[in-house]
Amino acid sequence: MSMRRILFTIAYDGSDFFGWQKQSGKNIRTVQGCFEEALSNFFKTEVTCIGASRTDRGVHAFGQRAVIDIDTTVPTDRLPLALHSFMPDDISVVDAKDVNDEFNPRYDCVMKTYEYRIYNAKYRNPIYRKYSEYCHIPLDERKMDDAAKAFLGTHDFAAFAASGNSSKTTIRTIFDINVRREGDFVIIKVIGDGFLYNMVRIISGTLMSAGIGKIDRIKTTGIIEKRNRALAGKTAGPEGLTLIEIKY
Amino acid sequence: MSMRRILFTIAYDGSDFFGWQKQSGKNIRTVQGCFEEALSNFFKTEVTCIGASRTDRGVHAFGQRAVIDIDTTVPTDRLPLALHSFMPDDISVVDAKDVNDEFNPRYDCVMKTYEYRIYNAKYRNPIYRKYSEYCHIPLDERKMDDAAKAFLGTHDFAAFAASGNSSKTTIRTIFDINVRREGDFVIIKVIGDGFLYNMVRIISGTLMSAGIGKIDRIKTTGIIEKRNRALAGKTAGPEGLTLIEIKY
Repeated sequence: MSMRRILFTIAYDGSDFFGWQKQSGKNIRTVQGCFEEALSNFFKTEVTCIGASRTDRGVHAFGQRAVIDIDTTVPTDRLPLALHSFMPDDISVVDAKDVNDEFNPRYDCVMKTYEYRIYNAKYRNPIYRKYSEYCHIPLDERKMDDAAKAFLGTHDFAAFAASGNSSKTTIRTIFDINVRREGDFVIIKVIGDGFLYNMVRIISGTLMSAGIGKIDRIKTTGIIEKRNRALAGKTAGPEGLTLIEIKY
Repeated sequence: MSMRRILFTIAYDGSDFFGWQKQSGKNIRTVQGCFEEALSNFFKTEVTCIGASRTDRGVHAFGQRAVIDIDTTVPTDRLPLALHSFMPDDISVVDAKDVNDEFNPRYDCVMKTYEYRIYNAKYRNPIYRKYSEYCHIPLDERKMDDAAKAFLGTHDFAAFAASGNSSKTTIRTIFDINVRREGDFVIIKVIGDGFLYNMVRIISGTLMSAGIGKIDRIKTTGIIEKRNRALAGKTAGPEGLTLIEIKY
């Protein structure tokens, strides 16, 4: 018997999940729970996985990562398609590769990319309701992009962490952040070494305030410096958020 | 009492509906049924509507149209927002205007625009599963666009009508049709004076055959001329289809 550690890249529609994290003793549908069940059915043995990022209820992913240890003869590159019919409709395995047995998907991560989508039109479009936050007030994406630059670099992001945050430190580094418009969508893209609980959603809510002219880059810098959650914007809804990519 | 005829423009996510058309005696969820129920609750009287296009189960709309006759003092331009809280999440009223009492949303239509979306990538992305057809074989959108030109103009589209078609004539005019790629999406846009039952979905299935090199523009012309449904492509799935616009 020889165990292999396999790193999966997973896409999912978060709409019908109570987030990534399996919650023992609770009868709720989680991505991790469904993913492990599918793997267990496929490999005909109980499989558990370690995920890279604990996405919240309603949050989507194109590039979540998770590892398993398994004794199998199936070639790794065949796994995404082979697993397809075992997965529920709202989870898809998009990549699989072998990694060494020291590899940890959480601690070895060097960079995460998230996108936050806002549907900014006079009236709602039901097609987009599960995949974007709706805002009827016209947003100025250039003002948002300018304010966003306040987040660049290494800061104490205590003002941008929800109360449930359990990280040892609230210091994080943002490598890149920008705001663009694509038709009726305003899209915030943020790349960092890691994010506190609800951090991208609070950043997005704060940038929406910038988009309607309530705050600017200087005020945003002040909010960061004061380290007070009450000064930052609202927590934007989960449906607008997608975990795009995790790099190792 | 003075009755007004009001023309609504409606967007909906067709995923959880058994199509537009109310079906008497059947306990199924239709867009027309839910829309009429919302209107009846808002106006506190039983309201029925006449829709422009009978979209199928799973088909979406940004620009469905429907008229009602109502005696109300609510200004027409206030109706879309006023109706919002009465509508289910998957229907949104995006426009309302007064029309004369001879206006018929079906017969006065001069032009309809549909889009068919294909998600063309190596692996499925669950986010798009309800809003596109999935195809893992790489499609050549230029070949599809070239073959599409065979449909331009006035033809007998008998080969592109499903057996349930009840129209008096199978002759229709396509004003414009084109195929473009946007990243991993291939999008077919077709504008015509009207469409037979499943016509856009059969055209889309046929163009997918062109996209993998099985047929070309000349063969497509031959399929139209032979008026034989068996020669045309498969009926592409409903989830890829969106009714974009209806013009009067």
